[in-house]
Amino acid sequence: MTEVVKIGGAVIDSEQDLTGCLRSFVGLKGKKILVHGGGRAATRVLESLGIKPKVHQGRRITDSPTLGVVVMVYAGLVNKNIVAQLQSMGCKALGMSGADLNLIRSSQRPKADIDFGFVGDIDEVNGKALRLLLQLRMVPVVCPITHSGTGQLLNTNADTIASQLAQALAEDGPTSLRLCLEKQGVLEDADNEKTLIPRLNEDDYVELLAQKKIHNGMIPKLANAFAAKNAGVSQVRIGSFKDLAQSGTEIIL
Amino acid sequence: MTEVVKIGGAVIDSEQDLTGCLRSFVGLKGKKILVHGGGRAATRVLESLGIKPKVHQGRRITDSPTLGVVVMVYAGLVNKNIVAQLQSMGCKALGMSGADLNLIRSSQRPKADIDFGFVGDIDEVNGKALRLLLQLRMVPVVCPITHSGTGQLLNTNADTIASQLAQALAEDGPTSLRLCLEKQGVLEDADNEKTLIPRLNEDDYVELLAQKKIHNGMIPKLANAFAAKNAGVSQVRIGSFKDLAQSGTEIIL
Repeated sequence: MTEVVKIGGAVIDSEQDLTGCLRSFVGLKGKKILVHGGGRAATRVLESLGIKPKVHQGRRITDSPTLGVVVMVYAGLVNKNIVAQLQSMGCKALGMSGADLNLIRSSQRPKADIDFGFVGDIDEVNGKALRLLLQLRMVPVVCPITHSGTGQLLNTNADTIASQLAQALAEDGPTSLRLCLEKQGVLEDADNEKTLIPRLNEDDYVELLAQKKIHNGMIPKLANAFAAKNAGVSQVRIGSFKDLAQSGTEIIL
Repeated sequence: MTEVVKIGGAVIDSEQDLTGCLRSFVGLKGKKILVHGGGRAATRVLESLGIKPKVHQGRRITDSPTLGVVVMVYAGLVNKNIVAQLQSMGCKALGMSGADLNLIRSSQRPKADIDFGFVGDIDEVNGKALRLLLQLRMVPVVCPITHSGTGQLLNTNADTIASQLAQALAEDGPTSLRLCLEKQGVLEDADNEKTLIPRLNEDDYVELLAQKKIHNGMIPKLANAFAAKNAGVSQVRIGSFKDLAQSGTEIIL
């Protein structure tokens, strides 16, 4: 089983939580990839630089100064700290953006009602490079920066990257995607961990959506999860970063 | 010939100069590695964040906030912009810090009269990983951040990194080290490009030093150049970033 694990949110900011999470990741057997976010750290650096973070429906609007900051924070600060920690645990981590080895090529999102700026929608994952690294037992640690192929870096959602990397690998054999968050998984009531939904298919999801039982921030995450499942990723789960062995919410067909 | 090229200083800051320099680098045949600095960009970000850059004899004192900034700027902003540009020129660039694949392990410099903070002196280059990447025709683009092996990132001089990478590869076959700068090479009179010294051995260097004819900033660069030459690097040159084919100053035994 090739494992693609995505972490983000508060876990990136808490040294203790991050160390625990990385230890759990190191414990996974076999080929694996870690994808990370870092939006909160980026927001802090933006504010320190006097740049007002701009967000539309939970998605960051990335003007030119903001792009500079997210590249610094995601590809620099967050990525290298994770890599150094993983290395200290004996894991052959290799930090990457989508530009490195042309791993993820994307196109700048066309301007519509909203101009998201330097945000990239993924065109192609370099599955050949990814498979080679995994065969060599390297552990790619991928930050949410992609490139246009013409020299432009672009900001891309980390859940989407994780989903697309898993999809690119799914044709080779059993692949698992785990999108981690602070909660235990998808909850019927966001404030009550006891309402964890253990298994969720798309029909039930659409119904829960209609009942407004899905938290807004969860919607793009679930879209990425279903995209992976529908594309043949064997196991797709949304669950806590605290223990990667726990099942959380399993996405089913 | 395996080529190790180090660029830094003003070239990193000028889009046009950088593109020209990278084009020249892409033109080099065979296995190659690019090492880059980025001190001026780091100084700008430090100042924007209200952190006063501290320098002792041309070397940056790296306290904890400064370390965060140099990691962001070197491993993030500068590294990924170079990688994206190289990729747009068809070069299989892979951006790396010393933490990635445990490429460069270092120790924090012991406190003496001056506490340099999170500055790392190189203990070991992972020659095996480096050779593997080069065999696979990947082009490592290395930023001047190393790691302790225990999770700590450290700031390390880029000329030293380039020299040590070249030394690690020298045992495998012909290796070239080129340390690039704005000038044509080592000059007898820093303000007169016509005083280029075409070939320099260590005896003549010591004499020029005694005559105070070597510019202060050039001293550590020359030390790194002679260290490489003495360790068996076949060709060591200090020259302009503008045209990597020009010979500049050749360091000889």
